[in-house]
Amino acid sequence: MEITFELGYALDTFYFLICGALVMWMAAGFAMLEAGLVRAKNTTEILTKNISLFAIACTMYMVCGYGIMYGGDDFSWFLSGIMGDGATDVEGDAATYAPSADFFFQVVFVATAMSIVSGAVAERMKLWAFLTFSVVMTGFIYPMEGAWTWGGESVFGLYSLGDNGFSDFAGSGIVHMAGAAAALAGVLILGPRKGKYTADGKIHAIPGANLPLATLGTFILWMGWFGFNGGSVLATATVESANSVAVVFMNTNAAAAGGTIAALLLARVMFGKADLTMALNGALAGLVAITAEPSTPTPLLATVFGAIGGLLVVFSIVTLDKMKIDDPVGAISVHGVVGLLGLLLVPLTNDGASVGGQLLGALTIFIWVFVTSLIAWLIIKAVMGVRVSAEEEFDGVDVSECGLEAYPDFVGSRK
Amino acid sequence: MEITFELGYALDTFYFLICGALVMWMAAGFAMLEAGLVRAKNTTEILTKNISLFAIACTMYMVCGYGIMYGGDDFSWFLSGIMGDGATDVEGDAATYAPSADFFFQVVFVATAMSIVSGAVAERMKLWAFLTFSVVMTGFIYPMEGAWTWGGESVFGLYSLGDNGFSDFAGSGIVHMAGAAAALAGVLILGPRKGKYTADGKIHAIPGANLPLATLGTFILWMGWFGFNGGSVLATATVESANSVAVVFMNTNAAAAGGTIAALLLARVMFGKADLTMALNGALAGLVAITAEPSTPTPLLATVFGAIGGLLVVFSIVTLDKMKIDDPVGAISVHGVVGLLGLLLVPLTNDGASVGGQLLGALTIFIWVFVTSLIAWLIIKAVMGVRVSAEEEFDGVDVSECGLEAYPDFVGSRK
Amino acid sequence: MEITFELGYALDTFYFLICGALVMWMAAGFAMLEAGLVRAKNTTEILTKNISLFAIACTMYMVCGYGIMYGGDDFSWFLSGIMGDGATDVEGDAATYAPSADFFFQVVFVATAMSIVSGAVAERMKLWAFLTFSVVMTGFIYPMEGAWTWGGESVFGLYSLGDNGFSDFAGSGIVHMAGAAAALAGVLILGPRKGKYTADGKIHAIPGANLPLATLGTFILWMGWFGFNGGSVLATATVESANSVAVVFMNTNAAAAGGTIAALLLARVMFGKADLTMALNGALAGLVAITAEPSTPTPLLATVFGAIGGLLVVFSIVTLDKMKIDDPVGAISVHGVVGLLGLLLVPLTNDGASVGGQLLGALTIFIWVFVTSLIAWLIIKAVMGVRVSAEEEFDGVDVSECGLEAYPDFVGSRK
Repeated sequence: MEITFELGYALDTFYFLICGALVMWMAAGFAMLEAGLVRAKNTTEILTKNISLFAIACTMYMVCGYGIMYGGDDFSWFLSGIMGDGATDVEGDAATYAPSADFFFQVVFVATAMSIVSGAVAERMKLWAFLTFSVVMTGFIYPMEGAWTWGGESVFGLYSLGDNGFSDFAGSGIVHMAGAAAALAGVLILGPRKGKYTADGKIHAIPGANLPLATLGTFILWMGWFGFNGGSVLATATVESANSVAVVFMNTNAAAAGGTIAALLLARVMFGKADLTMALNGALAGLVAITAEPSTPTPLLATVFGAIGGLLVVFSIVTLDKMKIDDPVGAISVHGVVGLLGLLLVPLTNDGASVGGQLLGALTIFIWVFVTSLIAWLIIKAVMGVRVSAEEEFDGVDVSECGLEAYPDFVGSRK
Repeated sequence: MEITFELGYALDTFYFLICGALVMWMAAGFAMLEAGLVRAKNTTEILTKNISLFAIACTMYMVCGYGIMYGGDDFSWFLSGIMGDGATDVEGDAATYAPSADFFFQVVFVATAMSIVSGAVAERMKLWAFLTFSVVMTGFIYPMEGAWTWGGESVFGLYSLGDNGFSDFAGSGIVHMAGAAAALAGVLILGPRKGKYTADGKIHAIPGANLPLATLGTFILWMGWFGFNGGSVLATATVESANSVAVVFMNTNAAAAGGTIAALLLARVMFGKADLTMALNGALAGLVAITAEPSTPTPLLATVFGAIGGLLVVFSIVTLDKMKIDDPVGAISVHGVVGLLGLLLVPLTNDGASVGGQLLGALTIFIWVFVTSLIAWLIIKAVMGVRVSAEEEFDGVDVSECGLEAYPDFVGSRK
Repeated sequence: MEITFELGYALDTFYFLICGALVMWMAAGFAMLEAGLVRAKNTTEILTKNISLFAIACTMYMVCGYGIMYGGDDFSWFLSGIMGDGATDVEGDAATYAPSADFFFQVVFVATAMSIVSGAVAERMKLWAFLTFSVVMTGFIYPMEGAWTWGGESVFGLYSLGDNGFSDFAGSGIVHMAGAAAALAGVLILGPRKGKYTADGKIHAIPGANLPLATLGTFILWMGWFGFNGGSVLATATVESANSVAVVFMNTNAAAAGGTIAALLLARVMFGKADLTMALNGALAGLVAITAEPSTPTPLLATVFGAIGGLLVVFSIVTLDKMKIDDPVGAISVHGVVGLLGLLLVPLTNDGASVGGQLLGALTIFIWVFVTSLIAWLIIKAVMGVRVSAEEEFDGVDVSECGLEAYPDFVGSRK
């Protein structure tokens, strides 16, 4: 082989691995964000959920998810990730980077969708029901819609959304809105937390127990998102691809900044205070909004797109609360509502996408994920139940599900 | 283009982006450090400040800061960061890495200076006064002094300190001492926290509420500093530049280690205990001390320089306290006093710098930033006030400024 | 020089530096993990230990450790790290990456072994006794066994384990089991914490004070391990080495996932609950188990190896407790018992290793580190004592050793 080919191969491989490590790091971000936004008595459980779902996602995607999403030949989709050389057969001889690096980058993506569900159903779901759902979501539901969008060669790609003018660069829809759709199905079946909405129609705010953790989680996600979006260019060893990766890093950062500022200001106007949790959700909304197309806007436009996401997320959180859809961390608003926004912003800067194609894609993803998730949740409910008892909920799920308090040395001000 | 050129371009671009992501990560480090060193009742506010100032810095630097600092032509400095290709015109055709990567690396630097201010004025400043100042600092004050030092081609670079024997590799003076100068101006106008210095001349220690967070923040900064100093070599795709980047990583680490040990031992001698907060400030002081020239010392010398920083910061913190300059996190000592030390150490190992040039540069930066900041603080004070009321300060700024407690589930032992 | 040589040199150097930064980041992981698993009253001290030991390890390894482990000529081993160009003489002219990058990658490894000790002796050891031991461990004990295994050219490498069929890719034995051996020696001399084992033969669980921190620490270690194992390929600029690095990243992740799931399920069976601390230790056990050979298994096998580690660690923790070996964070089980497992798994996928060679290597490392550590601990005990007084232990070592509480604003539920 030419030495220049080898160098390009090595650089692209290293780029995938570092971006993948940053995406893996987002798992820590979701864990800290959610642990910070729930009550102290439900913290151990949400930590357990987050590390376990990441482990399950990595294993299920290896066993069958990767094969469903990208596998070309008859049965090679099953257990394809288990082959000796990672997934050599999938990439074939024309690989310009290590097949295992491709697998690694894809496998860490899957957990993101599941982490979104984790936050929305917090504080009242049975741990093992959640983990059972995560097996289905990461091994089947997500890979199927992935096959229709990113997985051109998959035998399950009967229907390719890309041919219809759909474009989703790093997954505003395919990952984020998909996670939110699964979360929405779960939340509707679970119902709200006790005490959140009272009979007289009042909405009670239930503040998170540890805002430094929530802030840390947001910073981790912000950092990890450079890998999430930056790695989605899928190459960096040429001038053209390097420029594209650089624009993606710059715009991802700009959009997060825009979302933070917009949400902070809007919350100031609406609530009279500098609401930190809204600023954090604004940052995340900015990131979700730019994810569908971070490579074509100017940085000013990326900031504006992020700011629109930041405004939208505040309205969405308030609206969902009025609809009594109880999402303790705002995940459905951040990833679902703003994920849809991200898809719809694409045609403004990318000629390869059409509004019709984006709507068709969004609908396809939403309906597929929502309906299959609903079925899965209903089966799980029938078999093992999805909600802890009222007493367990009152005492906190940490003791009933995990047998461990998160902060046993500290005296609590509320049960 | 030659494929070897493309590979070098791609590698340098990727290097800038990863170093930039590490510098962005320092924002999380400052947030955790400061959140750990203030009282529980002032935690939400400092978190809000930290994420907001990062967002403001990124946006202001895009709108005008980058153009002021590096823009060459008449009005291209204004909104130059908003151009479609990042900042193509600034770099021109001779670019050996993506212009957007350069912009990204520069934009994440700016927030560092502002984060220094954030800690020093903690626990008593009005949030919106602080954020207003951050607009001025990141959009104007910092870019102007940046133009005189790093920004050779800027139309604002009327006066180039580099021509006078001034050298500041990654910003001991340009970033750290500048931030400390702005912080000092703010602290002098604000005055000390209630109860810090009593009428009978006593100094009351006000311990931080969460030392694990402060330690985490220090480790994050230590890690991020590899990007801060390592990226400042500005290239890595040749043997010479790769060797330089490697020396910078090695020495940055060595200096932090030296600072930690020196401060730990000195505090043991002075106070009789292993004072964790002094060890943390020692690590940061070691990092600041080496930042002005991490590429020329041997690792032993880097350790010694770091250790001198670690000793100095302990004396400085004690001295500032005696002078009743109340800096809750020690930021003025760490970044200002030790930043000056860093500048003065450069001529020992770098022939391109002279003691006179370093003093002239330090004076120029300090006077510019201190005076303009003082003016900005005074205007902000006149227009909106800078200090919360005594009652708000007593109750903690979290409730008055943000409407959210940081740890609502926990019973506090002090107001 | 050829430009392609320069590009390969630059890429390998950058790869080492980024992997090294990830390994440095593991220091934060150990600090958070241990701070989360001890009681609130012993938190400041363990944070102080963790940042100090990292600083000491970096300094001692520079002064003599690196020279002992890799130095070839007569006296060049002493202070070799202090030479101007990092350690040019060690690498010689044939270097294909920056010598300083090699030094940096090696120096951050050393602290890992020491961090393992830190957790095992927590809550009862004198801080300065621990730090004294860390000087000996990082400057002499670890470098000596490193010279026999990884340090082919070292003048201290009288005896090369590699020639006898021993293979330890990234240090299941050389780093992790070595750390555990030193920890075991310390724990045996120290004895258990007061109240852990009562006269009537009962074992009292002492839960950790801050499980979000412990979880964060585990995620940090998981991320940092990509650098630890991935960097141990020692090159990435060719197709072959890039493929190897990619396989290592993929398998490291898979093993951690397998360990998490296995430990979670086993704890569910044994204790009836989803025990978060066991899941965390399972993740770490999976990582330790794969570290001796992450480059040859398929990802399915890596998952299985990790899962075996996850099962073993639960049994080991329970067993050590029955033997009244009090290890507050489970470090001896995670790094020692599973480190041995990792060594013994190597011959299953790597023909270059034999069971006999692995056993011989494991025995050599264990005996060397255990015996020298025991001698060191005994001397330290005679000179300055190793254990705090019963009263200090009851009040917590934070106040007696550091003079600072970790969480002074919070009311505690237990002393």
